[in-house]
Amino acid sequence: MEVSNNYITMKGHIDGKPKEDDFGIKASQLSLSVEPGSNHIIVKNLYVSIDPFQINRMKSFSSLQESAKFAPDLTPDKVIDAYGVGKVVASGNTDFEKDDLVVGLLIWGEYSVLKGEYWLSKLDPMGFPLSYHVGILGMSGLTAYSGFFEVCKPKKGEKVFVSAASGSVGNLVGQYAKLFGCHVVGCAGSKEKVAFLKEKLGFDDAFNYKEVTDLKATLKSGVIAEYTDAGKRAAPNMLDVVYKSITIQGFLLGDYFHIFQDFVTTTSDHLRAGNMQAIECISTGLNSIPQAFIGLFRGDNIGKTIVKIADE
Amino acid sequence: MEVSNNYITMKGHIDGKPKEDDFGIKASQLSLSVEPGSNHIIVKNLYVSIDPFQINRMKSFSSLQESAKFAPDLTPDKVIDAYGVGKVVASGNTDFEKDDLVVGLLIWGEYSVLKGEYWLSKLDPMGFPLSYHVGILGMSGLTAYSGFFEVCKPKKGEKVFVSAASGSVGNLVGQYAKLFGCHVVGCAGSKEKVAFLKEKLGFDDAFNYKEVTDLKATLKSGVIAEYTDAGKRAAPNMLDVVYKSITIQGFLLGDYFHIFQDFVTTTSDHLRAGNMQAIECISTGLNSIPQAFIGLFRGDNIGKTIVKIADE
Repeated sequence: MEVSNNYITMKGHIDGKPKEDDFGIKASQLSLSVEPGSNHIIVKNLYVSIDPFQINRMKSFSSLQESAKFAPDLTPDKVIDAYGVGKVVASGNTDFEKDDLVVGLLIWGEYSVLKGEYWLSKLDPMGFPLSYHVGILGMSGLTAYSGFFEVCKPKKGEKVFVSAASGSVGNLVGQYAKLFGCHVVGCAGSKEKVAFLKEKLGFDDAFNYKEVTDLKATLKSGVIAEYTDAGKRAAPNMLDVVYKSITIQGFLLGDYFHIFQDFVTTTSDHLRAGNMQAIECISTGLNSIPQAFIGLFRGDNIGKTIVKIADE
Repeated sequence: MEVSNNYITMKGHIDGKPKEDDFGIKASQLSLSVEPGSNHIIVKNLYVSIDPFQINRMKSFSSLQESAKFAPDLTPDKVIDAYGVGKVVASGNTDFEKDDLVVGLLIWGEYSVLKGEYWLSKLDPMGFPLSYHVGILGMSGLTAYSGFFEVCKPKKGEKVFVSAASGSVGNLVGQYAKLFGCHVVGCAGSKEKVAFLKEKLGFDDAFNYKEVTDLKATLKSGVIAEYTDAGKRAAPNMLDVVYKSITIQGFLLGDYFHIFQDFVTTTSDHLRAGNMQAIECISTGLNSIPQAFIGLFRGDNIGKTIVKIADE
């Protein structure tokens, strides 16, 4: 059986904020079969993750390029890989069978053709919607969990401030911090988001960083703005860092995969007990990917941005 | 017995780089006796420390003022307190006797009159020059020791980069790091300093940050420049911090006084064994204090800047 496989591409490198015109859709003929004995897999994509960090892979030149090799630069007119959940339609790899649900690195397209080295695991949905495994039980969740518990190493009762608190990771950091017994304050970029944080997620306090004028730049800047505007760096005052004994620690998720199982167990228990909420912003259809992505940089989203590409 | 006690003052608040004219010298009549039963102490100052952080206490307005309360703002025409070594000339405090050598918070003046709460300890010179107890065996040494061992928590063989490496603290961080078995690279602001680091202190490599053009701002900026020029902040690129999993940690010495004895034992052992060197830049006479202080911001000094005020 042969299908036309539609996928999203960028037309050229993207500097500054992304816009609709930066993206295109291409199609290629795809035979839904693989050679027996190969390790190839064809996955029908169901839900894909829309993440701000992808913009760094789309830039024509970035001071980050060398260091950003953990996720290689993207090439115009080629497929754009992204985390997602799908279903195996054909497999030459004996670890996977047709109709297996899988999670891993797919593409912003209808089908992912996986060859050589790929990152794919069988998925047990554990009774949760598949989209949860893209967000709250996926990489966003693990980022929040490892960042909060492993990097910040909080103590009960401590005060926690979350920047970009209504975003995919921020809202989960806030939820973990509340459950852990911290006093949680968040900032976000609209009064709707602020209300959401306080009323729906139980943040102790929240404010709109665009309306606050008497805080230091570090606190004022929504971090998302930094992705596309180098002039808006939330650079800390290094003397403040010294005088206030502040620790700033960057981390990459790749260093925390070893706690994935612990994270999933804890988080799914919280979800079942009704202690945590999956905040999702799901649009439908491959064509909605560019707008979903662009929306991240406009501040459209609350929670995890996901595109549903197909029904199971 | 009454003497004329000369002391250094600032004439007004100082913004930008300090200059000779910013400072004055005042005198007050001082009776070299204290009321019995009071806790007052009069100390004849012998060596005082000249530290760049003092500039933050001299500014008319600083975003740091609130956070910098660990060392209160200085007032024009008043005494300027500073770490130093001296000798007790009169004491109402039974813990101190006349002729005791002491170390603690004195003033940039000939005599320190200590009343109320003060920070003073008896000093055992342990056979070392008194000036060592102002620098390598004093707060500069403890800053280097606690910063390197307690904050950085190095592992043998790791690469260590030291900014302002020829300064009072930087040169000691480099020396500790070499002794600990690290690969040490330093930057400083002149070719003489670079040569000094490599040839006298055994740094594995060193460079003049003023002559290097292909490094990131973070690495390029000598930190001393930040004290007086807000436009020269060595602000890190926060995306680099994330992508390279960098940790930036500010600390204050006050949190590490509990390891003082450990630090002194370790460092004095190294000094006796000839494994460490006290790099000092000592000028003589109270009048030399303003130039010694100003020189810090011109990059004049190599090692610890100290002013000898009187002979023992």
